[in-house]
Amino acid sequence: MQRVRVVLSHTSHPGNIGATARAMKTMGFSRLVLVNPKTFPDPQATAMAAGADDVLAAAEICSSLQEALSGTVLALALTARRRELALAPLWARAGAAEIAQVAGAAEVALVFGNETSGLSNDELAQCGRWAMIPANPECSSLNLAAAVQVMCYELRLAMQGVTLPPPVAGAGVPATHEEVGGLLAHFEASAVASGFLDPERPGRLMLRLRRLFARSGLEKEEVSILRGLLASFRQPTGKRHAGTSSAERAD
Amino acid sequence: MQRVRVVLSHTSHPGNIGATARAMKTMGFSRLVLVNPKTFPDPQATAMAAGADDVLAAAEICSSLQEALSGTVLALALTARRRELALAPLWARAGAAEIAQVAGAAEVALVFGNETSGLSNDELAQCGRWAMIPANPECSSLNLAAAVQVMCYELRLAMQGVTLPPPVAGAGVPATHEEVGGLLAHFEASAVASGFLDPERPGRLMLRLRRLFARSGLEKEEVSILRGLLASFRQPTGKRHAGTSSAERAD
Repeated sequence: MQRVRVVLSHTSHPGNIGATARAMKTMGFSRLVLVNPKTFPDPQATAMAAGADDVLAAAEICSSLQEALSGTVLALALTARRRELALAPLWARAGAAEIAQVAGAAEVALVFGNETSGLSNDELAQCGRWAMIPANPECSSLNLAAAVQVMCYELRLAMQGVTLPPPVAGAGVPATHEEVGGLLAHFEASAVASGFLDPERPGRLMLRLRRLFARSGLEKEEVSILRGLLASFRQPTGKRHAGTSSAERAD
Repeated sequence: MQRVRVVLSHTSHPGNIGATARAMKTMGFSRLVLVNPKTFPDPQATAMAAGADDVLAAAEICSSLQEALSGTVLALALTARRRELALAPLWARAGAAEIAQVAGAAEVALVFGNETSGLSNDELAQCGRWAMIPANPECSSLNLAAAVQVMCYELRLAMQGVTLPPPVAGAGVPATHEEVGGLLAHFEASAVASGFLDPERPGRLMLRLRRLFARSGLEKEEVSILRGLLASFRQPTGKRHAGTSSAERAD
C-alpha cells in the first residue's frame, strides 16, 4: 500500500485536502501528493483530517503533475465527464483492479483534478488509465474527498482480493514516468528537426503521442528501442548501420 | 430507487447532512430522513449540499428511529465497531446486495448513527442487518458523509446488477489490423533506411514493435500521425516543414 500515492491537482478548498487525508487513512493509504494546492497548509485542512494529521503532515507538494508522478509506472485519472479526446474510461472498480495488480510490484497513482474544472487535457494525457465512478447522469459530480473515499475503498478491496497471478512471462520492466517523458521529448525534438512539427504552431501532436504512450504501458527496453530508432532517423539519410559515432551526425 | 431512504440519526454537524444529500443525489437516491438532528436546517448544510438542495429541502425530520423506519421491511445499520451484543455484521458490499434485492419490491433503509457515538444498542436492534465498511483497523472511522457515499455507491451498483453498461467511448475510431500492419511495415522500411535495422540480421525489433502497438490499441488517427512522422524522418535532414514533394526525397 506504500506503493500507492494519491495525487490531488490544483485543489481549491483546503477542507477537501484534509478530508482526503482522512479518507485515505481509513483505507490504509498514506502517501498524499499535492500539485499546486490553492491554500495549504490551512486550519480547515487540519480540521477535516481528524485522525489523519500524520498523512497531512507528510503530504508532498509539487509544481506539476509530471513531478508528482515521478517514479510511477501507472496512473489512474478520475474524471466525471466523457471528453472528446477521451479514451474509453474504465469504471472505478475495473480501474482499481488494474492499479491493484500493478501495485504488487511498482509505484502507482490515483489522480484527482480540481473541484470545478477537473483535470486538464494535458494532465489526462499523462495518465495511462482513466476511470469514472458510476453516478446519476443528472448529478454526477461527487465531492472530491468523497470520490477519493470511493476509489481508496475499491482499491483496498482490490488489493486484499484475488491473489495476483504472476506477471506474464516475458513481460519486461515497466518504464517510469520520467523515462516515458524522456522518450516524448526525443520524439518532439525529432519532429521539430524533421519539419513535421512547427514549434510556432505545435497543435496537439505531443498531446496525442503522450496519450498513446501513457496508454501503452511502455517497458524500459521499448523506450530504449524507440529512442535508438529516433536517433538513427536523425543521422544523415543513407548512412547505414547503427553505431555511427556522434561526431558524424549531421545535427 | 425511490424505495430507498437514507436515515441519519442524531447527526451533530449540519455540514455532514448537506454532504450526505450530495452523496445520495450523485448515486441517484433522494429520500433523506433525519432523526433528531442537532442543528437543521443550517447554512452549512446548504453549502455542503452543492447541487442537492432539492434532497435537503425534502428531508423529513423524525423524533425517533422507529418513526424514521415506518413502512420499511428491511434496514441496514452501518457500524464501525464490532460490539459485544452484535450479530456478525456483513461487509458493505454484501449488505448492499441484500438491500438491493429487497428494494425490488419493498421499502428499505440505510441507517447511520452519530459521528462520535454511532448508533445506540436500541437503534441497532431495530435494524435487520448490520454492515461494516472494510477499513484500516488502526483508523476505521470514515467521515459520516463519506460512509454514506460508499454505501450509496455500492447500493447503486447492486441495484443496476452486476452487468454494468460499458462506458460510452469518447475514443477515436480504432485502427484495423491491416492499418497497424501498414504502420509496422513503414517502421521497418524506415529502420532499414536509417541503418538501425540490418535486414540480414533483423533480430527481434519488429516483434517488439508489433507487441507494443498491439497492446496500445491504436486509433486510425494515431496511425496517420505516426506514419506522417516516419515519412518526415526520411526526408533529407535539415529540410523543414511537411509537404515536401516526393521528388525531393533522398531515398
